[in-house]
Amino acid sequence: MNHLSNLQDLFIHELRDLYSAEKQLVTALPKMAQQATSADLKDAFNNHLSQTRNHVTRLDEIFSHLGTTGAGKECEAMKGLIKEGEDVMSASGNSDVKDAALIAAAQRVEHYEIAGYGTVRTYAEELGFDDAANLLQKTLDEEGKANKKLTGLAEGGLLSSGINKQAVA
Amino acid sequence: MNHLSNLQDLFIHELRDLYSAEKQLVTALPKMAQQATSADLKDAFNNHLSQTRNHVTRLDEIFSHLGTTGAGKECEAMKGLIKEGEDVMSASGNSDVKDAALIAAAQRVEHYEIAGYGTVRTYAEELGFDDAANLLQKTLDEEGKANKKLTGLAEGGLLSSGINKQAVA
Repeated sequence: MNHLSNLQDLFIHELRDLYSAEKQLVTALPKMAQQATSADLKDAFNNHLSQTRNHVTRLDEIFSHLGTTGAGKECEAMKGLIKEGEDVMSASGNSDVKDAALIAAAQRVEHYEIAGYGTVRTYAEELGFDDAANLLQKTLDEEGKANKKLTGLAEGGLLSSGINKQAVA
Repeated sequence: MNHLSNLQDLFIHELRDLYSAEKQLVTALPKMAQQATSADLKDAFNNHLSQTRNHVTRLDEIFSHLGTTGAGKECEAMKGLIKEGEDVMSASGNSDVKDAALIAAAQRVEHYEIAGYGTVRTYAEELGFDDAANLLQKTLDEEGKANKKLTGLAEGGLLSSGINKQAVA
């Protein structure tokens, strides 16, 4: 980022950050799915992979309307988040604990995206880009749901004991 | 992370990640306060700095009860988050837009901490560490409030127009 004249400059900057983040995730999620032991957790990562591909497509659509592209920025935070996920994947030990650790890493990723999409959705509204605001809200809702799904897998529900509980032993 | 035998191993690993994250923030927040133009935003960063120092103290207390220390892990994600904040700080341009960008960076930081503290608070509950769970919940509440405060500064309220609106022009 060299120059920020107005909110539209910042909007494009933040969208490119998310674009890089989503593309990094498209590479990371299949590895996380492979490393997960719980079938439900594998499914959650695989489902989120197809959502994530769709998030990239939505961003491409917004860039195209703005007459620009998503290229030119690497999301440093997502690089760090994924490095932490890889750290978990390389650990030895109990498979329930590793699943809990994968969930912890993935929830940090989801929260990063919730913060990022919340920001750009609000900028889009303030800039009067209603179509972009709607697309970004859709993605934001999906990130929120993905995060809640992970909480459910960790903490368990009425019918299951939850991965954390299994990891206590 | 080399070995994860049980949830307590993971609890300590995640606490150390947050410890490193908070310590990095103690260094970064004064720079963010200095770069902010809005007096309210400066205040928000300075207030959060004293809260963050207190979060470090709470973690020290928990480590001491567990018979260990917070040393030995560098939070890669916070490194990336702070690198992005520095990128914003080095940008030239309109001061309202820079303030909006600082808020965007800070909200990503808050969400990282919300995800992390939510995770360790739940682990503490499941491990039966009630005192730790209470301390971690206090920090989690403060991170949540800090995030909402930043949203308020960006979007404005009944009495103020909000930094984003000022940045549109």
